[in-house]
Amino acid sequence: MKRVLIAEGSEEMAALFRAELPEHEILIHPPEAVGAPVDYMVVGRPSAGFMAARPEVKLILSLNAGIEHLLRSGEIAEQTPIVRMVDSGLAEGMTEWVLAEALAWHRNIRLYERFQRDHRWQPQAEKLAHERLVTILGAGALGTPVARHFVAFGFKTRVWSRSGRAVEGAETFAGNEGLIPAVTGADIVVNLLPLTAETRDIAEARLFSAQAKGGFFINGARGGHVVDADLIAAVDSGQLSGAVLDVFRVEPLPESDPFWRHPDIRVSPHVAAPTHPRIAVVEIARNIKRFERGEAIPHLVDKARGY
Amino acid sequence: MKRVLIAEGSEEMAALFRAELPEHEILIHPPEAVGAPVDYMVVGRPSAGFMAARPEVKLILSLNAGIEHLLRSGEIAEQTPIVRMVDSGLAEGMTEWVLAEALAWHRNIRLYERFQRDHRWQPQAEKLAHERLVTILGAGALGTPVARHFVAFGFKTRVWSRSGRAVEGAETFAGNEGLIPAVTGADIVVNLLPLTAETRDIAEARLFSAQAKGGFFINGARGGHVVDADLIAAVDSGQLSGAVLDVFRVEPLPESDPFWRHPDIRVSPHVAAPTHPRIAVVEIARNIKRFERGEAIPHLVDKARGY
Repeated sequence: MKRVLIAEGSEEMAALFRAELPEHEILIHPPEAVGAPVDYMVVGRPSAGFMAARPEVKLILSLNAGIEHLLRSGEIAEQTPIVRMVDSGLAEGMTEWVLAEALAWHRNIRLYERFQRDHRWQPQAEKLAHERLVTILGAGALGTPVARHFVAFGFKTRVWSRSGRAVEGAETFAGNEGLIPAVTGADIVVNLLPLTAETRDIAEARLFSAQAKGGFFINGARGGHVVDADLIAAVDSGQLSGAVLDVFRVEPLPESDPFWRHPDIRVSPHVAAPTHPRIAVVEIARNIKRFERGEAIPHLVDKARGY
Repeated sequence: MKRVLIAEGSEEMAALFRAELPEHEILIHPPEAVGAPVDYMVVGRPSAGFMAARPEVKLILSLNAGIEHLLRSGEIAEQTPIVRMVDSGLAEGMTEWVLAEALAWHRNIRLYERFQRDHRWQPQAEKLAHERLVTILGAGALGTPVARHFVAFGFKTRVWSRSGRAVEGAETFAGNEGLIPAVTGADIVVNLLPLTAETRDIAEARLFSAQAKGGFFINGARGGHVVDADLIAAVDSGQLSGAVLDVFRVEPLPESDPFWRHPDIRVSPHVAAPTHPRIAVVEIARNIKRFERGEAIPHLVDKARGY
């Protein structure tokens, strides 16, 4: 009987796995001290040393889309494959969150809230979506559905990625030399990139300066993409009107962080694309079965590329 | 030369009309005292007596989707046709606004804003769109595109209208007897109905009570649809968690109105679907040309029905 070990899993999650994989032994750690070797490991943000103690593991299955912390840990053997979580729930959640924030900015929702506090009836000249330019950084499992919704609302939409993958109705930009052209004049820039050596610090002064004056920045990916001081400078100078950040270099965001206090930068506590246990478990169980049948597994991590 | 009179029009709007209708004489009132008879009248919210003074007018073209104030004025002769403004800009604007407000509620955007004020990192269990039920009241030029976007995000979507017009992917409800079934269990109810004798006061205690506990109400149509005291009671009792209202019985909303001060009811200053002059003028000019060629005009008001 193959054994599946869930790092810091709950009884609820174990029960979901038992329903999907009745032929497997499902273990959660803690509290279970597992003596015998395990075959598969399901991990979110495992504690230090956890993965290193299990060199016999044949396949690591991440509960999250972001796996850079697993690679950075140095605890995973070269030959052990890692599968990222790319479930429809993640893409749905991210799409809802990005569009909620983008539409709220586009339609002055927060401005009218401020007016209400002063009992001010003060309609603004409202722009329509087709008068706004939106650039999505990333054309993967998250960037693509997000871009599609922007297109459906009629926004002028651009998508930038390493490879230049196209999204219907959006303009495509690719590679290093395409980045600044992609964000030039953009009212809204949405970051949905994987965090790799190439994309770290990608959102910095030059990028914000290229955006349309008074534009907006949305980060749904990783804190390491953003040079925090450059973003704050861009907002303070009026080059950007604001930003909303769901992810940070340190999480939870420390009490001392200036983002908490900035009037035009909104802090969201890493909730854009939460993993929904029920959907994630079905997806992971499916990948374990694929692995056992020798089939190809989608979203295997390319360790050289970093995602 | 046919004459077009714009009630309370601006020079900018007159210039747009002159570009679209170079063969017509374009007049604005005030300041022009127009002695000779006019053929067409373009009106938004004309002052009392304005329309009554022009019985010779062959066609009245409204700058707005809502025309109940024109019918109520009693100043329009039985045989004079009225055309409502149904331009793509109105539908686009309404769609953006409704989705902005619905997604903001769905994804706890305002809750996280409150948490930020207290520097609280407090992720909530986020529901996905497919776990929410949305009911749209109205299946016309506004309700239909709004319903389509809810369907595209994966919300369980219902559409209620007098006639029971269907929207793909949504459940259809019709007529008086279908109203309460349509809103029963709805997390979000969006009102986009025309204001008629039949729909006045439609959003009252019985409707709010039928919604899911803790649900949300969005009014993008007319203030006359809502029994204000019933809405406030529903929110105060916790039956609804809140509401956002773009329209009111009296506009601008009087300083004394309790909506201004309610912590869970948001006031938006009638900006959901503003008329965009450039789009509206093209549409009106097109209808004048259709009228002159004896062609059918879309969106002619049915005076008996009230819209």
